[in-house]
Amino acid sequence: MGVLKPTLLNEIKFDADGLVPAIAQQFDTGEVLMMAWMNADSIAETLRSGRVCYWSRSRQRLWRKGETSGQVQALKELRLDCDGDTILLQVDQTGVACHTGRRNCFYRAVRGGDLVTIAEVEAEPGELYGAKD
Amino acid sequence: MGVLKPTLLNEIKFDADGLVPAIAQQFDTGEVLMMAWMNADSIAETLRSGRVCYWSRSRQRLWRKGETSGQVQALKELRLDCDGDTILLQVDQTGVACHTGRRNCFYRAVRGGDLVTIAEVEAEPGELYGAKD
Repeated sequence: MGVLKPTLLNEIKFDADGLVPAIAQQFDTGEVLMMAWMNADSIAETLRSGRVCYWSRSRQRLWRKGETSGQVQALKELRLDCDGDTILLQVDQTGVACHTGRRNCFYRAVRGGDLVTIAEVEAEPGELYGAKD
Repeated sequence: MGVLKPTLLNEIKFDADGLVPAIAQQFDTGEVLMMAWMNADSIAETLRSGRVCYWSRSRQRLWRKGETSGQVQALKELRLDCDGDTILLQVDQTGVACHTGRRNCFYRAVRGGDLVTIAEVEAEPGELYGAKD
């Protein structure tokens, strides 16, 4: 992985808060794991380290995914969309991506007009986290 | 498809502009096609019609995907994430999702430290659009 070059940084359209949404996708299965936010620093660190680092809006600090739980995301490729305002992270997810202990965060679906849970908890959150990851 | 029930609407955390990001994924291949924004009206219409309708932030109006180009997205399933602030749309994309004529919008990748184009134009934008879709 290289460092963040101006060519990439210049192509990213950050919002008023300096953030851009980033979708994490399991690189080999195509499973969409989660969506979170990145700033320039977290993008640079992600490219430098090869481990995904987001920006936590609630905690207002860099959020090294898995820093508490060990459920890290190894970066396979960082992609940018046509408008430069969304990032797609192709990753290799260790364990579960969701803080609820499910493999991905999109475990509720509209079926028959109701919102139903479609995925089971695979890891006990209490064993993974001291705090929400 | 049913109508938008309060149970779903109540679970969605819209931002200050009344919007929520929505990821569109090809339901059978897992390809992430694009990310756009929805408001309550566009979600209700999408569930009612079975065709994906976004909210265009630039045009400030409902954006029925494919209304100009014919490159529509048939809804297979609408999913909501753990925090209720991101939607995953599993769709069947007709033709190409990206206004550049590429199958998906994430056609630029960081490789060797540079941002490179990794997907070809499959449909001529001039033939698809009078205006950007």
